[in-house]
Amino acid sequence: MDKNLFAPTPPRGWNSYDCYDTAVTEADVRANAEYMARHLLPSGYEYVVVDIQWYAPDAGMQRDRFQYIPFGERVMDGYGRFLPDPARFPSSANGKGFAPLAEYIHSLGLKFGIHIMRGIPRDAAHRHLPVYGTDITADIIADPNSICDWDPDMYGLRDMPESQAYYDSIISLYAGWGVDFLKVDDICNTHAYVDRPYMGGHEVEMIARAIEKTGRPIVLSLSPGPALIEKAAHYCTYANMWRITDDFWDSWQALRKMFDFCEIWQYVASPGCWPDCDMLPVGTVGRGFNAERLTNFTPDEQKTMLALWCLFRSPLMVGADLPLLDGGTLSLLTHPGLLALQSPTARPRQVMKDSAGAVWRSEDPARGAVTLALFNFQDGPARMGADAPDFPAGILPELLGGPDGAVKNGRLTARVPAHGVRIYTVKA
Amino acid sequence: MDKNLFAPTPPRGWNSYDCYDTAVTEADVRANAEYMARHLLPSGYEYVVVDIQWYAPDAGMQRDRFQYIPFGERVMDGYGRFLPDPARFPSSANGKGFAPLAEYIHSLGLKFGIHIMRGIPRDAAHRHLPVYGTDITADIIADPNSICDWDPDMYGLRDMPESQAYYDSIISLYAGWGVDFLKVDDICNTHAYVDRPYMGGHEVEMIARAIEKTGRPIVLSLSPGPALIEKAAHYCTYANMWRITDDFWDSWQALRKMFDFCEIWQYVASPGCWPDCDMLPVGTVGRGFNAERLTNFTPDEQKTMLALWCLFRSPLMVGADLPLLDGGTLSLLTHPGLLALQSPTARPRQVMKDSAGAVWRSEDPARGAVTLALFNFQDGPARMGADAPDFPAGILPELLGGPDGAVKNGRLTARVPAHGVRIYTVKA
Amino acid sequence: MDKNLFAPTPPRGWNSYDCYDTAVTEADVRANAEYMARHLLPSGYEYVVVDIQWYAPDAGMQRDRFQYIPFGERVMDGYGRFLPDPARFPSSANGKGFAPLAEYIHSLGLKFGIHIMRGIPRDAAHRHLPVYGTDITADIIADPNSICDWDPDMYGLRDMPESQAYYDSIISLYAGWGVDFLKVDDICNTHAYVDRPYMGGHEVEMIARAIEKTGRPIVLSLSPGPALIEKAAHYCTYANMWRITDDFWDSWQALRKMFDFCEIWQYVASPGCWPDCDMLPVGTVGRGFNAERLTNFTPDEQKTMLALWCLFRSPLMVGADLPLLDGGTLSLLTHPGLLALQSPTARPRQVMKDSAGAVWRSEDPARGAVTLALFNFQDGPARMGADAPDFPAGILPELLGGPDGAVKNGRLTARVPAHGVRIYTVKA
Amino acid sequence: MDKNLFAPTPPRGWNSYDCYDTAVTEADVRANAEYMARHLLPSGYEYVVVDIQWYAPDAGMQRDRFQYIPFGERVMDGYGRFLPDPARFPSSANGKGFAPLAEYIHSLGLKFGIHIMRGIPRDAAHRHLPVYGTDITADIIADPNSICDWDPDMYGLRDMPESQAYYDSIISLYAGWGVDFLKVDDICNTHAYVDRPYMGGHEVEMIARAIEKTGRPIVLSLSPGPALIEKAAHYCTYANMWRITDDFWDSWQALRKMFDFCEIWQYVASPGCWPDCDMLPVGTVGRGFNAERLTNFTPDEQKTMLALWCLFRSPLMVGADLPLLDGGTLSLLTHPGLLALQSPTARPRQVMKDSAGAVWRSEDPARGAVTLALFNFQDGPARMGADAPDFPAGILPELLGGPDGAVKNGRLTARVPAHGVRIYTVKA
Repeated sequence: MDKNLFAPTPPRGWNSYDCYDTAVTEADVRANAEYMARHLLPSGYEYVVVDIQWYAPDAGMQRDRFQYIPFGERVMDGYGRFLPDPARFPSSANGKGFAPLAEYIHSLGLKFGIHIMRGIPRDAAHRHLPVYGTDITADIIADPNSICDWDPDMYGLRDMPESQAYYDSIISLYAGWGVDFLKVDDICNTHAYVDRPYMGGHEVEMIARAIEKTGRPIVLSLSPGPALIEKAAHYCTYANMWRITDDFWDSWQALRKMFDFCEIWQYVASPGCWPDCDMLPVGTVGRGFNAERLTNFTPDEQKTMLALWCLFRSPLMVGADLPLLDGGTLSLLTHPGLLALQSPTARPRQVMKDSAGAVWRSEDPARGAVTLALFNFQDGPARMGADAPDFPAGILPELLGGPDGAVKNGRLTARVPAHGVRIYTVKA
Repeated sequence: MDKNLFAPTPPRGWNSYDCYDTAVTEADVRANAEYMARHLLPSGYEYVVVDIQWYAPDAGMQRDRFQYIPFGERVMDGYGRFLPDPARFPSSANGKGFAPLAEYIHSLGLKFGIHIMRGIPRDAAHRHLPVYGTDITADIIADPNSICDWDPDMYGLRDMPESQAYYDSIISLYAGWGVDFLKVDDICNTHAYVDRPYMGGHEVEMIARAIEKTGRPIVLSLSPGPALIEKAAHYCTYANMWRITDDFWDSWQALRKMFDFCEIWQYVASPGCWPDCDMLPVGTVGRGFNAERLTNFTPDEQKTMLALWCLFRSPLMVGADLPLLDGGTLSLLTHPGLLALQSPTARPRQVMKDSAGAVWRSEDPARGAVTLALFNFQDGPARMGADAPDFPAGILPELLGGPDGAVKNGRLTARVPAHGVRIYTVKA
Repeated sequence: MDKNLFAPTPPRGWNSYDCYDTAVTEADVRANAEYMARHLLPSGYEYVVVDIQWYAPDAGMQRDRFQYIPFGERVMDGYGRFLPDPARFPSSANGKGFAPLAEYIHSLGLKFGIHIMRGIPRDAAHRHLPVYGTDITADIIADPNSICDWDPDMYGLRDMPESQAYYDSIISLYAGWGVDFLKVDDICNTHAYVDRPYMGGHEVEMIARAIEKTGRPIVLSLSPGPALIEKAAHYCTYANMWRITDDFWDSWQALRKMFDFCEIWQYVASPGCWPDCDMLPVGTVGRGFNAERLTNFTPDEQKTMLALWCLFRSPLMVGADLPLLDGGTLSLLTHPGLLALQSPTARPRQVMKDSAGAVWRSEDPARGAVTLALFNFQDGPARMGADAPDFPAGILPELLGGPDGAVKNGRLTARVPAHGVRIYTVKA
Repeated sequence: MDKNLFAPTPPRGWNSYDCYDTAVTEADVRANAEYMARHLLPSGYEYVVVDIQWYAPDAGMQRDRFQYIPFGERVMDGYGRFLPDPARFPSSANGKGFAPLAEYIHSLGLKFGIHIMRGIPRDAAHRHLPVYGTDITADIIADPNSICDWDPDMYGLRDMPESQAYYDSIISLYAGWGVDFLKVDDICNTHAYVDRPYMGGHEVEMIARAIEKTGRPIVLSLSPGPALIEKAAHYCTYANMWRITDDFWDSWQALRKMFDFCEIWQYVASPGCWPDCDMLPVGTVGRGFNAERLTNFTPDEQKTMLALWCLFRSPLMVGADLPLLDGGTLSLLTHPGLLALQSPTARPRQVMKDSAGAVWRSEDPARGAVTLALFNFQDGPARMGADAPDFPAGILPELLGGPDGAVKNGRLTARVPAHGVRIYTVKA
């Protein structure tokens, strides 16, 4: 089984986190999935992903003090495997896990994903729960020093065969439920120890192996970022996507910084291997964080974001409460010209970047297209330009309906709004 | 209560660790105490200290894999307070704790000490045990990120009043048992996070306050080292002694390195505040480590060690199986001339140190004595010297019975054996 | 002018350093060039590069104490521009610079390159020499803190327009001489300050601009490494090749480590942008270092080296005294099958790497070829294998004449000698 | 010669830097010295110190761009030894150096000091000037990598005997002039390389040796800070005072931070060894910096500063334009009660420090005095207290004329103004 075939193009879909934080419910998931099937699936958005702590009955209950309540109750089976909280996911009652929900998602033509933390529940180790399919107990494989410093639920696993058995046991369970996408957290950059930022590298390998054993093409996504550029080959060998940024939110500062991350990672993408700019915080977000709002991004910033994600070929996971999505945002998310930039044969490169802006160029031999994007980092509009020796002289229409650009003496110029973008494509 | 009065001179005694590791028993402690009362007490050795994991029935049982077995059984009461394992400490049965053993130690004219780890048992937090004297539970005060990376038993405590209550609860229990000396570990230098080497600083303050509340003059000793020189004032304000070195063992390399630590810490000692060079691995050591041996130190190295510890005014805690001690070692440990260097009015200073050796000078106005010690770091004997403008010209007897020294033209010279020392004292 | 057109494929040639250190002479250069024209040019080796300190009459004269004599005499014109030492390069006498030598090299059908250090001679700053084409002096543009910690000849330049003028003045001089290749040192990784490893980044831009102004397609090569992966975009925008390793020499340890560098940099190469594994220390090397020898590499290690450099598409700069080259080495350097792996359309990727070995795969759609290389890191021979789902079952000839490989059940296996390689290519 | 006898108490005096920057003149020095002789000498202020770049004719001439003009003209003799600029120091004309000025200073009953940078002038190395008393030249001993990153005049010296000869040559010259105090810069903390903050340690030893050779009791002062606490023994062995802080100026933030430095260094002082809190920026300062002003410190902050410097026993070097000093500041600088705290037998210790304030206690057995100082860090007045078990109950007068304090139940309390201090002394 070649894991690169699981994600020949950057995955697209929806993730519960940006709107619901830890406290999403089955009803929320179904509502978002239904919207997605109707409005976004035709544009290739297919993954519905339930993010962190679906196994936590207390999720969100002390939100002023803790995002993740320490030593809280976690639903798990006798083998230390988390199960959905039946109060929040009623269809999971009676040990059915996510199977009924996955089945429903599948019935909509979509795919189903879940989030997990690296490792085994701390409680399973302290309670010496048996590891499924082995005659050892969780305390043998749990590494008491391998902790996550922002979610206290887990211990990482030691590098030993019985740890593989545990990962096999959970991932075969997920495969049985019908999971198509697995977002694993505290693994791409393990923040706890500044001198060991990839301390779960062996667990990445174990998880990939466990997926392979299931025979199910489960897309493997690694979080959080910023990913370590010197580990690019390791991510690429074992995972399908990995976060190149810390949690991304709707601020210009964060969007500006993404250009720095994309500069570094621009060379690495290929079918099955996608550096990931994180979810798109558009529409209504922040509800579970007690900060519900329409995205803070201006319309121009949203275009900049979508343009960068598409050019760079990041996965596109929408963070919104989808049923509340407005038409303009929907149009942007499904813009055919933008999405076409994510072609697996495209070769995007940053042409320049300075404090005032950036230029990206993408060549796609398969489409016979060459694209130039002018990004303006400044707080006011600016006339920008880029060398375009292979662009025909004359006037060019803007991809997103902005003003035409002009090509003269091998140079493309256009007026670009504050924090905005102008994109021009020609046939090669 | 002024904690500096608890230890007006550097504490002396015996500690179980160097010989017994985690697995010392009540019989061992009694045998060592009896020897100490007979042979060492007249020289001021008075503390009998039971070191780490007296609460662990499994201590030492997987010694080839673990020094501290992760997630092992720990004896504790319903408030998350460790109790001695009654199998190893029979007199502690029926909830008596260390009271009977302490009583016996006291009956010998000695004082009784125990070792604890910073924080609360991880199990107490996971099991939500009540905190004595409060209406909250252990999970509220345990910090899931505050771990020790070499002993997985504990979580450090958050900086909040209820954490003080927990420390009050254990230390009043110890005071009730008759504990006179408390060695707290994973606190002087918290190794887990390289960027936070004193993450339990607030716990030092809580422990000091808890001791003060008991009204009992319990000596507070902090481990492990190397202590952080920039925290000297904090140690000095709250503790009586603190480890300036990582675990010290019987190798010349470690002894040589102690000169570097002593150089740094030479200015800090004062009554009640004693930088600590760690236990003296003399005689029979290493049994609990499956490496029983007579100390690897040569006789000259032992003299060097004792001379440095005494000059520097380190606490003197013997690490041996005392009943097996030979006469020569006993003589060295009780040498009146050496021990006199630990006078509270002494002012010891390193005069020089280079790759070949070091010279220390100690002035004690109360005794009217000036001492010069010549240490030879080389692997062969060497003639060494030091400026001694206030030493009378002529021949001087060596303190430990070595060859005489000569003072001429304001300079003291002597032949010093490999890794050895020569000490000369004059009346000022 | 598009600098990527200067080096559409990885440059090949010869560099004086590995054999002659700082002390190469015109006669040496001519002899090596003549050999190259005859034996290597047909295989694309075309650059003849004179490495460091061609301007130093004292080069090599205190080789036991200094590689670069501090404050030594340097030949320069009145504008602080280095000139070849006429004693070592007689044709440069009377201010002709390298023009006569370049002319000769060109007459052989070859191209001519030189090495420079970033910045301006320290002496020029201390003597306040005028900067050509400006009314300011060298002390204005020299940054007294921007030093190289291994060659004390230079000060880096401040980020100001007059610094551009200095770079313009030297590079137009070189262009006038007929220089085709410029190796700039102390710039790819500036080692002096651990917290500022790319302190000459603005100078890279100035040098690129100065080259562009000459209108001459001078290949720009940056040294030393290891290059900083997070600066890949900067190197790629301004330079043609840059060193991904510190100085490479003929030891297995260094060759083994190159696999780590290649793993990190595998994604970045493209026409005009070539991560550089450094010179090939084959044949006779080390003469100027007072360590003349035949390369320490075994024949298998040399094959491993050439295979990796070719697969990875590193520039190939031979380090030998060429006229002494033996036939076997020449055959390896000119092996058509190996050199074909450097195709600009190839896409090489590391498939796996562990402590025992590595597998690389290169797909070249233009040639319709897929190549697998099995590298054995072990000190003895080993049977190795790699997934080869698109390789036809059966027996495959080895590229370098080694034993056949076998493909069975989608897996290629072969026996690989110690530190050796086996390469197999199929048509896609 | 015992260097500790050169400074049995913390040196007091005046330094030109805070007011005149690099551009002080002989007339300035004389005017300040005359004031000092009249008003401050009775209180022990005796050193008149000419700070940095007395050898620079261009000092201060490009003050908007550079504090130290790179590659500027420096007055030196044929041996690379700086001489005073005769334009600024007329009495130094005709090679007399500072001898006439020193003589005048001495005639006032004062002592004379100068500032130098570690190393040899860069120009001396580039010009291969001879080293006095040797047959080698400056380029042999100058280390081209040993630079100062804030003053570009010098190269540090290599660790070799000829370097000692250079230091001997300059310091014997200074001794001949009558220099009594030598402030050596770029040596206590060498900021250029973050990984080598004490790269001139061997030069400290050479300078101390050169002073000893002169037979003149020249006080050795090391700058800049912050000094490295782990090098305390080295400073103490070779120097008389060393800066524990970076440059100190008249801001509350800097004064507040000094408490942190004093906390760390409180244990180290002894006769001849004085950790140094830097000059006192009182009165008129900043003229040479184009920022002439009356000190920004409030009267209470000045009291806090003086109290801390005196308690801690820092040297007291006034930074003002002395002739402009007002009576209040003069009274504070010469307050007998404050100055008495600098007794060589005093033992000052920080009792506590938190975000609100600090308490220091000083015991002086020779005087039979115990002092408590309450420092208020807050921006408003506060009632503060400290344990004072050995203070008699009742009312106590404040040392500086502030409100009385009260002792009750072994505790001293007083109201302390914002950023202010209250000091109370009792006879033991």
